[in-house]
Order: sequence, then structure tokens, then C-alpha cells
Amino acid sequence: MSHLLSIEDLDRAGIERILDRAESFAEVSGREIKKVPALRGRTVVNLFYESSTRTSSSFELAAKRLSADVVNIRAAGSAVDKGESLRDTVQTLSAYDPAAIVIRSPHAGTAALVVPWTDAAVINAGDGKHEHPTQALLDVFTLRRRLGSLEGLNIWIVGDVTHSRVARSNILAFGGMGAKVTVAGPPTLLPRGIEQLGAAATPSLERLHEADVVYVLRMQQERMESAYIPTLREYAQRYQINSARLRPGQLLMHPGPVNRGLELSGEAIDSDVSLIGSQVQAGVAVRMAVFYELLTVPA
Amino acid sequence: MSHLLSIEDLDRAGIERILDRAESFAEVSGREIKKVPALRGRTVVNLFYESSTRTSSSFELAAKRLSADVVNIRAAGSAVDKGESLRDTVQTLSAYDPAAIVIRSPHAGTAALVVPWTDAAVINAGDGKHEHPTQALLDVFTLRRRLGSLEGLNIWIVGDVTHSRVARSNILAFGGMGAKVTVAGPPTLLPRGIEQLGAAATPSLERLHEADVVYVLRMQQERMESAYIPTLREYAQRYQINSARLRPGQLLMHPGPVNRGLELSGEAIDSDVSLIGSQVQAGVAVRMAVFYELLTVPA
Amino acid sequence: MSHLLSIEDLDRAGIERILDRAESFAEVSGREIKKVPALRGRTVVNLFYESSTRTSSSFELAAKRLSADVVNIRAAGSAVDKGESLRDTVQTLSAYDPAAIVIRSPHAGTAALVVPWTDAAVINAGDGKHEHPTQALLDVFTLRRRLGSLEGLNIWIVGDVTHSRVARSNILAFGGMGAKVTVAGPPTLLPRGIEQLGAAATPSLERLHEADVVYVLRMQQERMESAYIPTLREYAQRYQINSARLRPGQLLMHPGPVNRGLELSGEAIDSDVSLIGSQVQAGVAVRMAVFYELLTVPA
Repeated sequence: MSHLLSIEDLDRAGIERILDRAESFAEVSGREIKKVPALRGRTVVNLFYESSTRTSSSFELAAKRLSADVVNIRAAGSAVDKGESLRDTVQTLSAYDPAAIVIRSPHAGTAALVVPWTDAAVINAGDGKHEHPTQALLDVFTLRRRLGSLEGLNIWIVGDVTHSRVARSNILAFGGMGAKVTVAGPPTLLPRGIEQLGAAATPSLERLHEADVVYVLRMQQERMESAYIPTLREYAQRYQINSARLRPGQLLMHPGPVNRGLELSGEAIDSDVSLIGSQVQAGVAVRMAVFYELLTVPA
Repeated sequence: MSHLLSIEDLDRAGIERILDRAESFAEVSGREIKKVPALRGRTVVNLFYESSTRTSSSFELAAKRLSADVVNIRAAGSAVDKGESLRDTVQTLSAYDPAAIVIRSPHAGTAALVVPWTDAAVINAGDGKHEHPTQALLDVFTLRRRLGSLEGLNIWIVGDVTHSRVARSNILAFGGMGAKVTVAGPPTLLPRGIEQLGAAATPSLERLHEADVVYVLRMQQERMESAYIPTLREYAQRYQINSARLRPGQLLMHPGPVNRGLELSGEAIDSDVSLIGSQVQAGVAVRMAVFYELLTVPA
Repeated sequence: MSHLLSIEDLDRAGIERILDRAESFAEVSGREIKKVPALRGRTVVNLFYESSTRTSSSFELAAKRLSADVVNIRAAGSAVDKGESLRDTVQTLSAYDPAAIVIRSPHAGTAALVVPWTDAAVINAGDGKHEHPTQALLDVFTLRRRLGSLEGLNIWIVGDVTHSRVARSNILAFGGMGAKVTVAGPPTLLPRGIEQLGAAATPSLERLHEADVVYVLRMQQERMESAYIPTLREYAQRYQINSARLRPGQLLMHPGPVNRGLELSGEAIDSDVSLIGSQVQAGVAVRMAVFYELLTVPA
């Protein structure tokens, strides 16, 4: 493996190897001294064309806990303002000989586009509506830690599937690990052909009780160019996940940041069945494992 | 001590313990290699919801000189833009298991609000008009270094007391160390009941010559929602501290950033009696001491 | 040498000493562990009043590869928003006792202005239309590496000379290293008296074939207050450097970021004769050498 662009880059064995390694980094992150020298003196570039707290800080910390030097580049206040093309930016940053470039972009396919322009390992931190593979890996990690395995698990992904790169990556990753995936949401937010990724699709939450895990998607207000739903209030009435809709024993996940009270109720977020905190925590360990796998293991 | 939210968290012995420790860190900051390994491998999060140069860079440097890994989060360009609640942001960042979260916010009480949501030590870097305890500590440190003790000292705090978290913290800290504090400014900028914090209040600078130390506050133009003073020009005429108003032997302080020529004249800033540079310098050592006290000393 | 404000601070021997040192740092940057302990525990402040990707990240990485602690300050979101004067900002940052302050500003002369206000070594990272000395040094480094020497070389600097600090620094540096420099561009973009810096000037590209090196300037749209050229399209027709205008054997340089398709054609950027990638790469090594020279070599 030389890049991580899509969950499709990984077979089940590949995913499990990363998760196993992430277990050992989770142990490092639990120590008082949360640091190993694996990437000392190597450079990681975080190139973010979309605002982000959790993903960018998670990658930053993962790299720092491996002792790498990190350079954070944000679109605002950078040469991007001066109209520099993506290609020129990537080639410029590549001249620093970074071990990895982590890239987030509002455009699908950006991470793959960048690969021929650099010798660095490219890690997709989210490209438009396409994929967000480290999110999927940390979600699988979180579930595997909690339940031992995803084999035969019934996972419902609920909400704005159309605009969600997380949905795409997670359908592939959950399916690849043996889970049965159903996507649910308003028909306008379920993309045609989503079944081809290996998921069942339904506009109704009637059979939500069948789910072992309810994975709620963020309503991507900032990526909705036009009206896909009548009103946010009506969406919340029909699709919000809250304690009235959950049955005991179901686990709750969300990639964050949550629109509290929209796709998810406040009391559900803070309940015992919520794995949201564990997901964020898993993020650093899983990203350390991805860096380690890409940068230190001979291909 | 597990958090630093307010000067009221500290008694005189507690303040003196931090100042003594800051002395040894001031010595470290004077060396060529300004670094000790005390927090190696530990994570400090700086979460700033207001723009800041001096406070944020001072905390950042203090953490780095203790060898911590630092993650800086600013409201602009972060999940805060996506409408994430403070609680969710803090819980997200807490999943990284940081040793400390340093938080600045435009709203009074934010630092205290955050405590139940995290296992990290919370340090208030300024919350609205409420408090700014590390500023008060560095001011006491600066005066103690210069004069040996604050006991019996006559300190005047001049200007926009109403909008000043610095004034509140410093009245408490100066008073707690044995100084006699007077606040002075236009009646509209002197909050009612300020005497209850232990300060005398006067709208006149007539007796300013009695002060040993004149502590000038920043005119908080950005926190003034409506007109508290007729014009800035009139304010400057009546309350600006300049060499005509200072008598020989008085020391001059200001928390910065200064509105040069408004609350303080340029020549006063740059004069021998100004301790402004020493205050900034003290900031790093005092913040190192606060981190050390909170993160390495058993409670 | 205690500061680097202008190429005029350096004689030929001084330039060569920096370039020789940069050679050894280029070797460090080629290693897997790109790090030496030369500035461990010392502080470098990057103070940028203009947006920048390549220059700021290059200085940041250079300092980190020397093991310094780096504090990045950008005008947006800093005390500068609160109207703090440059002097107060510099004095504040100087209270941290930084080894160096790297400063970029839209105003000519800023770096020199700052010197009396700080004990730090001041490095000019671009001051308005005045100078950008580290750019010139990395350009000389790039050419010396490729060709052995600049002695007798024929270098054409093409484009918007008037608004270019790079042009000014490079005329001085190339000339100082024994090259013959010609500047070419629309008469409105060739400043009067430019010959006094030691360059020939021409509005025509007719004799461009005489050049060994064609150094294309960025069209500084953001620094142009009024119309200097009829249209960008006409500029491109008459002055764009592309494969039709280059003859075999000529080397191509550009300080970046490039306006692809304006001053330079896409295919020229990506051709074999382009040294643009080498220039960026040289940036880190040369800036390491500048830090090393200023901060560790007794003056």
C-alpha cells in the first residue's frame, strides 16, 4: 500500500492489519507519554481546502505522536488565495520531500488526482462527496473494539446519504468486514444505484429496530446547493434519531460534528449507547496506524 | 488545584507557590536552550474563540518549552463554523486525552462551564468580562520581581473597568497579595458594586499621585456594544495616562495590546517606568508554572 | 552578519558561505531523518502580514529541521486586528527572547524598521516591493548547483519588474555573483532607474535567445493599484514565456506561485528546463543556512 485514497484500496486483511496496529497505538495514546519515535525527522503536510477541527487536529496529533514534523496548510491565507493551481501547490509542497501529504478537498477525486504529482504517500482526508477512508477505518475499529467483530452485524446508516463521503466509505468498509448494511433517509437524499456498493436502501425507519448499530450521518447543510428536503424541522420530525426511535441494546454512531437536535437529539448524543467519543478517540490511533503502515512498512 | 478558572481558586500561598515556580522557569527562558522535558509526550489544546496574539502565543510557547505537543484550534476555519456546540467541541478534543485545555471565549463563565465535559485540566485564558487569571498572575509576578513584595502597595487600575476581565482578576490578585487597590475611570465604565471585590472606586484622577503603580486598562472598543463615553478623544483628554499625569517614581503597567495614544501615550509606553515588556516576558514563565502546577504536582 | 534585510547586506564571499552551508543542509533534507539539533530549545517567530504558503512553510520547516520551536503569527486573527502597532507587536514577541523573527509585510522597509525594537535576528521574508533576499539566495543556490557558477551567465528577468521585490533582490544577487542581468517587460512595468541596480532594461523579447536563464516574474495582480497593462490577455500574447519563445538549452525559473497560462505557459512550467521545483526545494536548505549563519556563528 503506498497511498490511502479509498477504502477500495484495502482488502479485509489490509483493514485488519491496520486495526491491529491501531490497537498498539491506542495503548500509546493511553500512556502519560503519548509518543513514539517512529517518524522522527520526517515531514507530514496537512493540506486542507475545507475547514475542519476534528479531522485536521486528529491527523496533526497522530503525526506528532509519531514524532514527525507537521506543516499545516489551509486554503484561507495561503497561495491558493493567489490563484495557484492545485497541481502547483502540491508540487511545491512535494519539493520539501514530505513523507505524506494529507489532503481534504471539496471536490471528489482530488486525492487520487494528486498522486502523480508527488513522491509522498497521499492520504485522502475527505474529497467532496466521494470518500473519507480514515473515518471508515476508525468506525470499524470502534465497533471491533466494542463487539469483537463486525461479522453478521446489522448496521443502518441514516440520513443524508447523497452528500456523504462518510456513507460511501463506511458502506464499503462495514460490508468488507462482513456486516449487512442498510441506508435509510428521505428518497431525495438516497442516491440512485447506492445498492451497487452493497447496501440495501429504504426511505422508512419502520424496521430500524432490526439494526444492531445506528450510524447517523451529518446533515451536510453546507454542501446542499438546493433544497433536498422541505424543511429542516420536517426532516427532524421524520428522521431524527432520538431515544423514542432507538430500542435498548442498539449502539449509536455519528462521524461528527453533530447538528445537535437536527439529525440526532441531544439526549441520544450523551447517552450510554453513544460511541461518538470512542470514535474520535479511535481517530488518532487509527491515523497513527495509517501513517505507520504507509511510511515505515516496505510496500 | 486541578483547574485555573479564576483567581479565587488560589489563596495567597497558592499564588506564591506558582510565582516561586515561575522564577525557576524564568531562568529556563533566559538560557540559550529554553526547554525542559517536564511535559514530553503530553498534549495541550489551545481553544481560542477570540482572536489573540500575545495570550495564545504565550501559552503555546510555554507548553512547547515544557516539551508538550500543542494543538491550536481557532474558531474561524474550524467545526465551530459548522455550528458545533461548545460542548461537542470540548468533548471531541477531550477524546485526544489532552493534559490541559486552554480556553478563551467572549462569554463569561465559559471556562467553568467546560470543566464537567473533560478530564483535562482547564485553564481560563479569558472568558468575556469575567476573568483572566494568568494575566493577573503574571502581573503579580512582574511587580514582585521588581519590588520584592506587593504588601502595602498602592495600585491604581485606570480606564474601562466595566469591560475588563483583567481588572476583575487583578483586583482580586493584587488585593490577595496585600496591596491596596483603587479603580478609576469615567463613571459609566466603573461597574456598580466593584467595591465588593475589595477596591476603592473614583471617577477622578486627582489623587493619582498617591499610586505606587498605575495599571492602565485597554479601552475595549470591540467589546463595547453601545456608547459608554462621549468620544474617544474626550476620553483621552480626561483619562489618558501620559507623562504629564505620572509623577516620578510611579511604575506603569498595561495588559496589552495597547491603543497607543488613546488610554496611554506613546512616550509613556516607551519610558523607563513602563513594565509592559516585563509583563509579556513574565507571561511565558508564569504559564509554564501554571501548566507544571496543574499537570505534574499531585493534587 | 546579525540580520538579513537585503542582499546588499552580503558580499560575494558572504553569499558563498551561505550557499556552501546550504549544500550541507540540502544533504540533511535528503536523508530520511531530516533533522539536526542546531537550534534545539531556541524560538523562531514567523510574523506574516501577507498571505503565503511557500515562504512561510519553507521558513517553518527550515526552523523545525534545525529543532527550533516555531511560533507562527498571521495578521488575520491576531492582535493586529485590534489595531496594535507594528512596534508593539514586535516588542511583545521579542519579550519571548526569540533567536530570530522572520517578517513579511506589504510595506517596503518593514524588516529594517523592526531591527531597533528587538534583540532577535531579523530576517526579511519580503517587504512590499523592496526585497526578498532569501528568494534571491535560493535562486543563486539553484543555479550554482545546476551550472557550477553564475560567472558570465546571461540572465533575463521577465515581466512585472515594478512590483517585484524578487526582481530587486535577484538583480543584486545575480550581478554580485558575476552574471549579466537584463530585465524585460512592458515599459509601464519597468521602473525608471532600474539600470542603477546593475541591469540592462528592454521592452522587447527580441533578443531573449541570448539568455542562458529566463527568470519569469509573477504578475503581481494583488499589488497593482491601477492599470499598468491594457489587458492580461494582451500581456500574455506579448510577454508570456512559453515553448515558442524559449530556445533549446535555456533554463527557466519562477519564484512562484505561478499564474499558469498568464506569465508562463503550463507546458513550460512542466518541461525539463524548468527549475521551479528545484527552487522550492532549495528554499528549505538555504533558509536553514541563513538561520544557522545568523544564530550560531559568532558575528
